[in-house]
Amino acid sequence: MPNKKNSEKIYKKARQVIVGGVSRNTVFRKPYPDYANAASGCFITDIEGTVRTDFANNMAALIHGHSFPPIVDAVIEQLKKGTAYTLASEIEVAFASHLIDRVESFERIRFVNSGTEAVMAMIKASRAYTGRAKIAKAEGSYHGTYDFAEVSQTANPSNWGDVDNPSSVPLAHGTPLSVSKDVIIYPYNDIERTLAILDKQNEQIACVIVDPVPHRVGLMRGNQEFVEALHNWTRKNGALLVFDEVVTFRVNHGGAQENYRVKPDLTSLGKIIGGGFPVGAVAGSAEVMKVFDPHEKNLLLPHSGTFSANPITMTAGYTAMQYFDEKAVLRLNALADKAIQQIREAIKIADVPVSVTGAGSMFRMHLRPDPPTTYREAYLSQEGKMLINELLDYMYYQENTLMINTFSCMLSTVMTQAEIDKLAEGIQRAFVALKPKIEKLNNL
Amino acid sequence: MPNKKNSEKIYKKARQVIVGGVSRNTVFRKPYPDYANAASGCFITDIEGTVRTDFANNMAALIHGHSFPPIVDAVIEQLKKGTAYTLASEIEVAFASHLIDRVESFERIRFVNSGTEAVMAMIKASRAYTGRAKIAKAEGSYHGTYDFAEVSQTANPSNWGDVDNPSSVPLAHGTPLSVSKDVIIYPYNDIERTLAILDKQNEQIACVIVDPVPHRVGLMRGNQEFVEALHNWTRKNGALLVFDEVVTFRVNHGGAQENYRVKPDLTSLGKIIGGGFPVGAVAGSAEVMKVFDPHEKNLLLPHSGTFSANPITMTAGYTAMQYFDEKAVLRLNALADKAIQQIREAIKIADVPVSVTGAGSMFRMHLRPDPPTTYREAYLSQEGKMLINELLDYMYYQENTLMINTFSCMLSTVMTQAEIDKLAEGIQRAFVALKPKIEKLNNL
Repeated sequence: MPNKKNSEKIYKKARQVIVGGVSRNTVFRKPYPDYANAASGCFITDIEGTVRTDFANNMAALIHGHSFPPIVDAVIEQLKKGTAYTLASEIEVAFASHLIDRVESFERIRFVNSGTEAVMAMIKASRAYTGRAKIAKAEGSYHGTYDFAEVSQTANPSNWGDVDNPSSVPLAHGTPLSVSKDVIIYPYNDIERTLAILDKQNEQIACVIVDPVPHRVGLMRGNQEFVEALHNWTRKNGALLVFDEVVTFRVNHGGAQENYRVKPDLTSLGKIIGGGFPVGAVAGSAEVMKVFDPHEKNLLLPHSGTFSANPITMTAGYTAMQYFDEKAVLRLNALADKAIQQIREAIKIADVPVSVTGAGSMFRMHLRPDPPTTYREAYLSQEGKMLINELLDYMYYQENTLMINTFSCMLSTVMTQAEIDKLAEGIQRAFVALKPKIEKLNNL
Repeated sequence: MPNKKNSEKIYKKARQVIVGGVSRNTVFRKPYPDYANAASGCFITDIEGTVRTDFANNMAALIHGHSFPPIVDAVIEQLKKGTAYTLASEIEVAFASHLIDRVESFERIRFVNSGTEAVMAMIKASRAYTGRAKIAKAEGSYHGTYDFAEVSQTANPSNWGDVDNPSSVPLAHGTPLSVSKDVIIYPYNDIERTLAILDKQNEQIACVIVDPVPHRVGLMRGNQEFVEALHNWTRKNGALLVFDEVVTFRVNHGGAQENYRVKPDLTSLGKIIGGGFPVGAVAGSAEVMKVFDPHEKNLLLPHSGTFSANPITMTAGYTAMQYFDEKAVLRLNALADKAIQQIREAIKIADVPVSVTGAGSMFRMHLRPDPPTTYREAYLSQEGKMLINELLDYMYYQENTLMINTFSCMLSTVMTQAEIDKLAEGIQRAFVALKPKIEKLNNL
């Protein structure tokens, strides 16, 4: 273990004031989290002075890495004019136009402050539009901290029930029973089972939520046929098809939804569209989005937010997305393809039972020879989780590489082939070092 | 109506991309919202070039007005080092320590991204700690956009029911029935009725939420006896007493809760503690906050957030709160007292049936001779709302003064006696101009 003296000192103080010492469980690392000193491009320096390559990018939120000069310059200019007003601002209109031009299914948009708020607004809009209370979501999928959206997020073998009828497992202790009752769980990419489950409550479902590349389910793509089947089902049954693209919007210039012939009614956004600042948005058909419209005599969904569409987030986000144009998206996705190819090579050379899933500029490694096709297959036992943590620690301490805690990478446009080479070589060394444990896990 | 050519042009474009043309209903103004060009100190300039004095301060979120130089400088410095990391940062610990030192009831804190997220986390923490599903809140109080927290926010005579047993009125169309069932509504400041209502479901209540100066109820203070009675009731019945201080934290150096002999178990924060950037926080007793602690073997409330405790918000917020020290709080509250006094003088001179409520640096005017003591008294008829809008328009267009849409003012530390004089004189002219309508409203 390298020197972590400064972090230890700060963390001791942190535990006296912040519960558990961290404001986000994702930054927790045993025995102490590390504290950042500064970050630039794809490198992050901790307060001990160690520089690491950042493949986490604040949980996939930074598409251009850190301190991207065009964002820094634009934000400084806006800062001097104010950060938030009780008036509208021109930049929100320009940014809204930009996003609507990017995606066919976006006719109207509304900004909020986080992915959690975006998903909550999307669910509330679905209920307001349909007048129905229930929602359907995939087992294992993460959609932020709204309790309805959290159901079965971490379902496990002890409570997930029969796959033909997965249990609705609340995430937090004390969640009202009615919350779980109003959330229907379907097995991702499993058409037959999913339709059978939805059919049972077909007149009560406001929306079917789909993350087109659900990170926590296994970062596999939603099959064309699966998404089309859900689309058809929602058309037939008066429900909405809604996408959570908070993470996946980076997959194509027009989001992961570009991959499908059918389009969602609503989409929630967050992460990269904020240019490094807190953000969320709901976008979709003008007809459905009308539920938010204060001009309507009977306003179905009154909605506001102190910092929604604040000009700093709008400025940073608009700048980020302008630089993430078609060309930048293609270049970054090609770099990710190359990375996956090199990692598969490393897997072969190290001769370990590991597989890779992903889409666009994201990929995730799994400690099993074949890529998982379901959440239950991707699910990690306690031993598996511990081994993933060992691999992450190896990458972090030995290879100075920061990854996401699911053993995933989210690339940024400032990365080059040099970083990918370093990553693939590091991962190969990690696999070699931990090969006996990876093999043992597979034989358990 | 003054020239609004530029706003009209932008708004036309806005309606094509943003639902209703605005991302927050609070900035909507008929026929178009105004668009801000820049703001500095207590002045905001729209894109037509009109300068107005800002008594709204982004819905009470800006305690030092706009572009406060120490915040701008500190944020620029942090900007160059990055806006958000997948690591912890030192500034969150420093800021957490500062807030905990300010308030007796704060032993541990956790940051989130908005007041909405703060209240949602506070409610979920209360349920996790007690294992109970229900919450109690005041009729008419605003606590953000979490649907449980929204119940009866805009209850009206047609649906609010008997005051001895107020109805739980969902805000949004399509809200699950179970949400309203899990929210118990009490009449603010009414001890006898409130305790009788709570007693009926005493074993199911996780928390009683109190905003100590609830803006939408009427911006009256919570009585000492009322808050103590709720405290006693929660002690007796195994429930938590939790405060929403998102708006009211500005009332004293240690929040509005300083006014009471009893302390809440949890408090939600937002607005001014972000220094102009999106923010929220939950703080409270170490014992209760433990539900968030990832060190716990049985973690009761898993919780994260991509932008939670991001170093930009932490830097801006910490700077803002350091400058809002005891001396600054006392000076600002004295200025508000002076403003209320001058407005009462204006009411007398204009001879209109108007009253003022408020606390700390906030006040609200009511179109009735005696200050309202309940939400039902403060409730505005359609005629009353239209007249408030006329008064706001008068202040906005004739007096170049921006106020909050409840006819309220939230002061900032950069204001001086000169702005207060101008405000009181403007309000007096508005009262004189609309006196016949104000009198007519009172005789309806």
